[in-house]
Amino acid sequence: MTNATLGLYGLGTMGSALALNILDNGYPLHVSNRTDKVVDDFVAEAGPLAEKLTPARSLVAMAQAMEAPRAIILMVPAGRPVDESIAELVPHLEHGDVIVDAGNADFNDTMRRTRELEAQGLAFLGMGVSGGEEGARRGPSIMVGGTEAVWEGLREVIEAIAAKFEGDPCAARLGPDGAGHFVKTVHNGIEYADMQLIAETYGLMRYGRGMAPARIGEVFAGWNKGRLQSYLVEITAEVLAATDRETGAPALDDILDRAGQKGTGRWTVIEALRMGQSASAIEAAVAARSWSAEKPTREAGAVLLGFTRGAVELTDAELEAALLAGRIVAYAQGFRILRAASDEFGWSLDFARVAEIWRAGCIIRSSLLDDISGAFRGDLPEGQLIFAPAFAQMLQQSAPALRKVVAAAALAGHAAPAFSGALAFLDTMSTARGTTDLIQGQRDFFGRHGFERLDGRAGQHGPWWD
Amino acid sequence: MTNATLGLYGLGTMGSALALNILDNGYPLHVSNRTDKVVDDFVAEAGPLAEKLTPARSLVAMAQAMEAPRAIILMVPAGRPVDESIAELVPHLEHGDVIVDAGNADFNDTMRRTRELEAQGLAFLGMGVSGGEEGARRGPSIMVGGTEAVWEGLREVIEAIAAKFEGDPCAARLGPDGAGHFVKTVHNGIEYADMQLIAETYGLMRYGRGMAPARIGEVFAGWNKGRLQSYLVEITAEVLAATDRETGAPALDDILDRAGQKGTGRWTVIEALRMGQSASAIEAAVAARSWSAEKPTREAGAVLLGFTRGAVELTDAELEAALLAGRIVAYAQGFRILRAASDEFGWSLDFARVAEIWRAGCIIRSSLLDDISGAFRGDLPEGQLIFAPAFAQMLQQSAPALRKVVAAAALAGHAAPAFSGALAFLDTMSTARGTTDLIQGQRDFFGRHGFERLDGRAGQHGPWWD
Repeated sequence: MTNATLGLYGLGTMGSALALNILDNGYPLHVSNRTDKVVDDFVAEAGPLAEKLTPARSLVAMAQAMEAPRAIILMVPAGRPVDESIAELVPHLEHGDVIVDAGNADFNDTMRRTRELEAQGLAFLGMGVSGGEEGARRGPSIMVGGTEAVWEGLREVIEAIAAKFEGDPCAARLGPDGAGHFVKTVHNGIEYADMQLIAETYGLMRYGRGMAPARIGEVFAGWNKGRLQSYLVEITAEVLAATDRETGAPALDDILDRAGQKGTGRWTVIEALRMGQSASAIEAAVAARSWSAEKPTREAGAVLLGFTRGAVELTDAELEAALLAGRIVAYAQGFRILRAASDEFGWSLDFARVAEIWRAGCIIRSSLLDDISGAFRGDLPEGQLIFAPAFAQMLQQSAPALRKVVAAAALAGHAAPAFSGALAFLDTMSTARGTTDLIQGQRDFFGRHGFERLDGRAGQHGPWWD
Repeated sequence: MTNATLGLYGLGTMGSALALNILDNGYPLHVSNRTDKVVDDFVAEAGPLAEKLTPARSLVAMAQAMEAPRAIILMVPAGRPVDESIAELVPHLEHGDVIVDAGNADFNDTMRRTRELEAQGLAFLGMGVSGGEEGARRGPSIMVGGTEAVWEGLREVIEAIAAKFEGDPCAARLGPDGAGHFVKTVHNGIEYADMQLIAETYGLMRYGRGMAPARIGEVFAGWNKGRLQSYLVEITAEVLAATDRETGAPALDDILDRAGQKGTGRWTVIEALRMGQSASAIEAAVAARSWSAEKPTREAGAVLLGFTRGAVELTDAELEAALLAGRIVAYAQGFRILRAASDEFGWSLDFARVAEIWRAGCIIRSSLLDDISGAFRGDLPEGQLIFAPAFAQMLQQSAPALRKVVAAAALAGHAAPAFSGALAFLDTMSTARGTTDLIQGQRDFFGRHGFERLDGRAGQHGPWWD
């Protein structure tokens, strides 16, 4: 397996970047794509790297041209295309070959495909790849699910193409079958939340403080030198600074404020809910994208409800602290979901290692991840990241700013679903005696559902049933 | 079918109440239960009504004792028990017989069971029943999914046992197969949100204004005479007023503040997400219940984070208005989910009729539902309840109070996930130009995802790719 012939099928943005990365690292590579022109273009683009390249006219032709043992990386859209590719491939593979799904698969599919292929004597590796095009090209973060044996066989090449954090490859086998794709899904859920928190911050600065995008970009660039240092804050500064070549206006103002609502963020939330988890910051980010798609509704609402966005008095430092608090909650909720899945599927996920392989290459890489891996290696009261001494301290320092941001946004009419969702989580998780006693009382009143008592006495119904 | 022999299996709280209701309305009824003692107790409890009762020692014995055509109502826990009961029954049924599932089924199961039974020449009715024990006994709201023919056959008895609103039975066939159970699920999702909004209001009054439960109960009782008139506000007043028989302390204070996190609220949110919908107020309520279950974590958090709940300056009138705004959002988001499902499954749901059959019998019955059915029969801009003239006006009047409540809760450390989730929805849906442009810019920057342009010019990438 260490000497497996490598093939990659699907030369779209991510696939071609990953292929060039593999070639860059000195590995010979077979490639193929659904349409021949894409293969020809890729070979031309590869330049001197094309020397180690063997193009093929179809997936089957590629498999047939490869010497066993084969490792065939699929980089095709998630869902049916993956199943179709596998079905095409299987008759041409033999024992010892492995299919690697490097797309954004639903981990449930990865578990099923692993079962199905193993039943046929073949191996399957579910490999989550994060880092966008640039990451795939220069070194992504790679989250692997599969057997130890298959991982060990491909480890050398995967570690070679992965990003490095101070020399440590940002790639790991995290567990069996679906574990890698699940972690990648949750990575994207955290990414959704972080992006939404940034967007809410931008909105308050632009529409609440009247700052121009370029000026906001400068503030973000400054934040990127502090506790908020991260890829997403860095590129936010660049997006805000960019201007339209023709008009000189902010490039941002050419962009429709509307995003799709399907994908990994949504999967994260659904899987979390299925396991009894609620990740409010991620849910809010999914909601914001979903609602953004309803542009005509929002345009009608602006007229029919007539709410306006007013001025907010918030300093840069307050917004910075609030964004830090929100980001901590986003990570913490992501790791809560990982813990729930690890328990449910018996994956024994190494949370510290997950944080480590996110420190470079991936979209959510940030300076906080070093603290997170440290927290998971240390004392973690109740298993909660927000209670680790370093994070509890950061939250105590930043919570007043987060409160001020949520309050200012609410009063002035700026939608802040992620900030308020993050705060609601923190306030709930630090309230020993909540208000669910009333809900339990209502449920017993109308449905005789019963409740647990605080005083240890007998009787699980209220006096309304006496 | 109109002359179908009626049977009911499962004499738990809801089942026995429904059985007595049927007997009350003069229909003879066969009954059975998994354990004989429950049947015996039920017969004894039925008193003079037992005259029209035929008890049986098992589900099969009951079916065998019934003359065809049979209509057998199952009132057993959702999931496997329903499938097991169906499997037991089928060999003893004949063409023209119908199985009615009156439990809280997952509508996906109802669709599957309908297909399976119809393939065997039998009929299935998915019947959502709301109203708790009292509703089931005296008249619940009944949401039916099934064929027109099966509905017409059972309509007389279903309408007889249903609640009446000014003489109009709160029962309707809403669509085929899973439509009834889906509407019931969303009903429960709205119920979750309304209960959570009430709990947050209670928390602000008790822990932010230092009011005693009995005093808060008086305020709720007063609200029940105004725009908030509803069953949930009415029983909240009673729960708050109740005292422990022995100690005289508020009954509420005997109740552990911890609820389960599984069930119909969660289903609502998952199904909504699956269809690309985000219902923030319902999501918040599911989150609050889920987090409430983590009592030891919350106790640790109170110490480790050290946040406290401070005083809030909010008047009764402001809380009343905020609760009204939150409730409107809860209903509006529920109907958005119904619309999405109706479109996806081709149910052609009559939203006005749904609101009408919720006006009596069910847990979320409230004076607002008359306005809602009116709104759906009238002009509904963009199909949004919040834009109907009556509701837009109520929201304009109550939004300032909602803003003040969210801000006060945030600043003083009271968790308010449902209030803030409702406000985020309103502010998003009334913002023509949101902040998702930045998210689209980020996505194009790191993943070359592209975006739609506002200016209609060519090029779907930002200048960062030039």
